[in-house]
Amino acid sequence: MQNLKEIFTPCLVIDKSKLSKNIQRIKSLVSKRKINFRPHLKTVKCKEITKTFIDEFGSSAMVSTIEEIEQLKECGINDFLYSVAIVPNKLNRIAKSLSKNCEITVSVDHISMAQELVNFYKNTGSKISAVIELDFDGHRSGIRPKAKQQLCEIGKCLSDAGLFRGVMSHAGESYSLSNNKELIKCAKNEADQTLLAVSILKEASIDCELVTIGSTPTVLSDYQNNEITELRAGVFAFFDLVQAGVGICRVEEIALSVLTSVISINKEIDAIIVDAGWMALSRDRGTSSQKFDYGYGQVCFENGELIDDVIVTNVQQEHGIIQVRKGSNAKLPDIKTGEVLRILPNHACATAAAHSSYNVINNKNEVTEVWDRFNGW
Amino acid sequence: MQNLKEIFTPCLVIDKSKLSKNIQRIKSLVSKRKINFRPHLKTVKCKEITKTFIDEFGSSAMVSTIEEIEQLKECGINDFLYSVAIVPNKLNRIAKSLSKNCEITVSVDHISMAQELVNFYKNTGSKISAVIELDFDGHRSGIRPKAKQQLCEIGKCLSDAGLFRGVMSHAGESYSLSNNKELIKCAKNEADQTLLAVSILKEASIDCELVTIGSTPTVLSDYQNNEITELRAGVFAFFDLVQAGVGICRVEEIALSVLTSVISINKEIDAIIVDAGWMALSRDRGTSSQKFDYGYGQVCFENGELIDDVIVTNVQQEHGIIQVRKGSNAKLPDIKTGEVLRILPNHACATAAAHSSYNVINNKNEVTEVWDRFNGW
Repeated sequence: MQNLKEIFTPCLVIDKSKLSKNIQRIKSLVSKRKINFRPHLKTVKCKEITKTFIDEFGSSAMVSTIEEIEQLKECGINDFLYSVAIVPNKLNRIAKSLSKNCEITVSVDHISMAQELVNFYKNTGSKISAVIELDFDGHRSGIRPKAKQQLCEIGKCLSDAGLFRGVMSHAGESYSLSNNKELIKCAKNEADQTLLAVSILKEASIDCELVTIGSTPTVLSDYQNNEITELRAGVFAFFDLVQAGVGICRVEEIALSVLTSVISINKEIDAIIVDAGWMALSRDRGTSSQKFDYGYGQVCFENGELIDDVIVTNVQQEHGIIQVRKGSNAKLPDIKTGEVLRILPNHACATAAAHSSYNVINNKNEVTEVWDRFNGW
Repeated sequence: MQNLKEIFTPCLVIDKSKLSKNIQRIKSLVSKRKINFRPHLKTVKCKEITKTFIDEFGSSAMVSTIEEIEQLKECGINDFLYSVAIVPNKLNRIAKSLSKNCEITVSVDHISMAQELVNFYKNTGSKISAVIELDFDGHRSGIRPKAKQQLCEIGKCLSDAGLFRGVMSHAGESYSLSNNKELIKCAKNEADQTLLAVSILKEASIDCELVTIGSTPTVLSDYQNNEITELRAGVFAFFDLVQAGVGICRVEEIALSVLTSVISINKEIDAIIVDAGWMALSRDRGTSSQKFDYGYGQVCFENGELIDDVIVTNVQQEHGIIQVRKGSNAKLPDIKTGEVLRILPNHACATAAAHSSYNVINNKNEVTEVWDRFNGW
């Protein structure tokens, strides 16, 4: 076992007990609500955590890349839902991962793509099923839930070929909220709009076996609806400063951090310079529109203890500039070149994506395991 | 050979003839000025391009990670300069790459680290030489050029042990400029301040064998100073929208782009939705403070032709939202789901870092080679 002083920086650190608590929080919530939970693997991209998800939640998963299917199917997942609207030139690669133990469902928002899927099935025998992607706020791909004609046309096309599974939605706007009342309203809207589409399809005799909704904030809100068959979330396992700003976790519950070495002390601008720049932290500024702007991250001591009002105020490719938050009377910690600090991320998905492994620590801050992670599409 | 329609998206594309022209532009400039040129490998992180650099510029290189040394030393580089202020716990790993054919120079800005280097040499026999990092604007690590006492103390400590090579500076502020007059002023300041430190050291009988300065904008400015022994630049090989905004390249000269598939058409917000989000483009918003804000990138047709005023206005993890620039009368191209577009990056270093390979295309937009790239520290 290594301690954090001995490992090469910058690198990712997972506090295993926080990770477990975050997973157990969702586990207890979905057990109580008696609803299926489908973890989104786009955040963790890691076999060890995926296996824990399977133990806790069963063998269905959401993915944002085909790479996630290929890398993680051997963990025992038998029901993948691919979240990004599908295009024809990805079907052949997806089909290679199909097996009697591995069903793959894609999402569509246009009749032409539904027809492509049906033709692909006819021509190749590869059965890639689909959900209809719904969109509430017109912000990207997806169909408006009340767009009856489009819904029924796609639903019937897929259904007639035995490829239709149901509808999928994601309350992405929940990330911009900041209190429980707004979150409940957002979660209710997510469920109501989704169920509107389900009822429109049902009137046309098209049954949704899968009614899947969710985002970490809406899943963790107090809203519950028994007609929804499945909830999804991704960042819940790590949490991050944006989620703390939304109000669904405390900063102390964030399981992921970046370990960094102090490489210089700049007294002129009262700054600690570290070897974690945007390559290690990402350029995500998700907290910039929240009540507490953490710059590029909240700084902690090596043992994970928060240093109040000390944040990463600026980044270059391999340099992070740590300063006291503007307007605060706090002081920088007395620290020397070569010592290490830890930085909590704005957005865990983006920060994790900058690295190829996780250093997993126990309660004594000793590295007990190193888990690989991957990127790519 | 594949055409761009056949390869899996999102992915990186290098236009080989633009890459060659960009490299030849620096080659011709440094040949004329009769000065050594040390390419910074942090942008490309690729063996094939590194070999071209060696052919054109010789076998010295700048790196921002030790991974770059380990991955690229076999290309034939015998003089690495590591750009990030060194800390003790990185010395052992660096020492492993030293050989009679491979010298490694690190940068220091504090006497304590100079002493560590000397002790490391005494204790292990591993000779890691060093330059003093200079800082003009007090923005991160480095010593003020006029800080005589610090300069001479570090210089003497390293020099007495036979580890001193000279001084290193980087006009990072050049990235925020936008015309040739400002650039020349910035480049002159970079040279003058660096030479001030050289003269202070010389007065103390400490000779700088290496006087290395540079950033892509200042190197490409019209300023020249014969007392400088070496210029450095990194992003020049690819260029990007930020460099176009600085005024040192045309948008048409950018050699790097992200190939992406159209996954949905959103008529409600007049947008094309593509499968390149911030995972593929990065979250860099470097053009946001420039005269032309390109959002998250400039959109081109599959063949590389620019689509005027059509940019990526927003990104999520795996979704890019393409719209017409606000205030423009341009129209979105008439394009269907499944077709491909190319996106020029704000910042080539950040966008390249999101990928693990380059698809290299010829003048007919055919993929002739795939070059691996790497990340990590």
